[in-house]
Amino acid sequence: MSTFRFELIKEDKKTGARLGRLYTTHGVIETPTFMPVGTQATVKAMTPEELREIGAQIILSNTYHLWLRPGEEIIAEAGGLHAFMNWPHPILTDSGGFQVFSLQKIREITEDGVHFASHLDGSPLFMSPEVSIRVQNALGADIIMSFDECPPYPAERSYVEASMERTHRWAERGLRAHKRAHDQALFGIVQGGMYKDLRQRSARTLVAMDFPGYAIGGLSVGEPKETMYAMLEETTPLLPRHKPRYLMGVGSPDALLEGVMRGVDMFDCVLPTRIARNGTLFTHDGRMVIKNSQYARDFSPPDPDCTCHVCQNYSRAYLRHLFRAEEILGIRLATYHNLFFLIQLMADIRAAIREDRLLAFSERFLGRYYARDPNRAF
Amino acid sequence: MSTFRFELIKEDKKTGARLGRLYTTHGVIETPTFMPVGTQATVKAMTPEELREIGAQIILSNTYHLWLRPGEEIIAEAGGLHAFMNWPHPILTDSGGFQVFSLQKIREITEDGVHFASHLDGSPLFMSPEVSIRVQNALGADIIMSFDECPPYPAERSYVEASMERTHRWAERGLRAHKRAHDQALFGIVQGGMYKDLRQRSARTLVAMDFPGYAIGGLSVGEPKETMYAMLEETTPLLPRHKPRYLMGVGSPDALLEGVMRGVDMFDCVLPTRIARNGTLFTHDGRMVIKNSQYARDFSPPDPDCTCHVCQNYSRAYLRHLFRAEEILGIRLATYHNLFFLIQLMADIRAAIREDRLLAFSERFLGRYYARDPNRAF
Repeated sequence: MSTFRFELIKEDKKTGARLGRLYTTHGVIETPTFMPVGTQATVKAMTPEELREIGAQIILSNTYHLWLRPGEEIIAEAGGLHAFMNWPHPILTDSGGFQVFSLQKIREITEDGVHFASHLDGSPLFMSPEVSIRVQNALGADIIMSFDECPPYPAERSYVEASMERTHRWAERGLRAHKRAHDQALFGIVQGGMYKDLRQRSARTLVAMDFPGYAIGGLSVGEPKETMYAMLEETTPLLPRHKPRYLMGVGSPDALLEGVMRGVDMFDCVLPTRIARNGTLFTHDGRMVIKNSQYARDFSPPDPDCTCHVCQNYSRAYLRHLFRAEEILGIRLATYHNLFFLIQLMADIRAAIREDRLLAFSERFLGRYYARDPNRAF
Repeated sequence: MSTFRFELIKEDKKTGARLGRLYTTHGVIETPTFMPVGTQATVKAMTPEELREIGAQIILSNTYHLWLRPGEEIIAEAGGLHAFMNWPHPILTDSGGFQVFSLQKIREITEDGVHFASHLDGSPLFMSPEVSIRVQNALGADIIMSFDECPPYPAERSYVEASMERTHRWAERGLRAHKRAHDQALFGIVQGGMYKDLRQRSARTLVAMDFPGYAIGGLSVGEPKETMYAMLEETTPLLPRHKPRYLMGVGSPDALLEGVMRGVDMFDCVLPTRIARNGTLFTHDGRMVIKNSQYARDFSPPDPDCTCHVCQNYSRAYLRHLFRAEEILGIRLATYHNLFFLIQLMADIRAAIREDRLLAFSERFLGRYYARDPNRAF
């Protein structure tokens, strides 16, 4: 019997939002939740202790990267990914599907799987549902993902449909290959591109396979936000209420809130960590590019309304200096703050759902965050 | 009246080592001590909190770099360097002399000072004792350094002698320019190249100027270690017993011990932090190049005899993975460990002096550390 369970605590009356709790092998997660991305068995520039400090409950790691380096055998020999990276808390691994389809230029897709070249040294590689599940079983994450085909955007309907159907067949093969259903929950991934009827069909097909949880894949790939929200609206109502819904690759504040209000429980995105390394910080008044000259003598906190350790102890002027001086500490502090910001946002969202004020919270938060960016471009 | 004071607690019977205590504006320092280098108002990859965690008592920052960027006015406006970088503990700033003489290709040395080009944008700059002291007064460190001329190595005796005499005249000018003797202790720097009589003369000349502390400069510039030790032996006995002695730019374990045994109280060096960024770690059995393939499946601690947080929680295999994957966390963990290692070494040295067993400790420590490197090349 599996340890994995989702508890639906509350459904928002005015929106599709839910308050929930995920029980996994390595711990409990309050949802909705945002998962920091630790691609290569490390969330860039952060220690596990800091991740706990800021309230991270679960992190994501990438099967493709770890398979290539250092390899599943080394991580298994370490006792699994949790031990290897000193994060004894929930982990989700993605399947490698997205990287294989997006990182690799030279590739051949067959019914069996995907032939491609390693981005490290160009050597020929092959990934399939069976390979992906085998590697994820070795890594030992609490939640693992089906190996899916991610169509490019835009793509012709016929291509998206054929791709989706193959993804369904691959999902089935993944289920059969999975050897650790007792302690690793394998999620299915809904595809269907930007076609409402395909999204509906994909949802129904995967629901029939009875996965313990469902991701919505193939979104946030360059489509207009309104399109993404429309696809969500076609999908989440067809997914089981008592199972978690995971929107992959989304992390901007508006997408998080709009996703939550359309029934999403889990998110992951490299956005906070990636923009941090470029010196861009989230604040309640929108993004801040810390290298701008206006901050040279600004000794106020990066975000005066943020309670994180960085905003309590460091000034904008100092952070700007660190980035202009290309100092690692700048990356550390910006990363810490950005992750805290999003994780705190999710905590505020949960409180708002609990107290029946999510819509008001969302309007106030987004109104202020996008005041200078009404098109919500950033 | 100045807050600065050095208390000589104990003099080792068998060697020239001393146990001491430095009282500065921002706190007390047990000596002998090693100062991590925070060139650009940050010890690379470390937070101030981590520095305290590993036992750092005082850090060094570089006047030259901060003068160029972000500039003394911004740091003064922040409330001084301590506030700017969130390190409310002792700081020592060097004068800029070494950088000006070593970083700058195009320069003109006059009696007035040094004309050179900024390494950032090539703009023409001028530094003198007066400029250096003014900037150091603005930065606000607890201990500041005289602006000295650092002769190249090797150099002709006539050059070294003329350079030394100018350094003496500059030291006098620095004393006169110093406006914060009440809360900033200005140290003199003994020069004299590799000439015993010049070292003696320099020591006597500076002692007569009654500085609160003395550095020995112009060593560890490429000369054989035996030569450096010989120069120390000519110098420290001529320096006041009741004032601290600071050997600049030295941080290898043997040089630290040999320096302590020749009467040195303070050291600084970029070695631990620089080699950390390249994946080289100090261990009790000598340096370890973590990227080596022998560590790929080595799940033991980096240094099994180290009690630092890194060695308690991370394996060699993981650290190797981080460095091969070029992950920032690798740099963080290696830096943390290397600084802890040297700072712990100094604590062990102090305990050994206190317990009259320094020589035995030194022989045992260095015997093991250099077992695989009898020439003590690294």
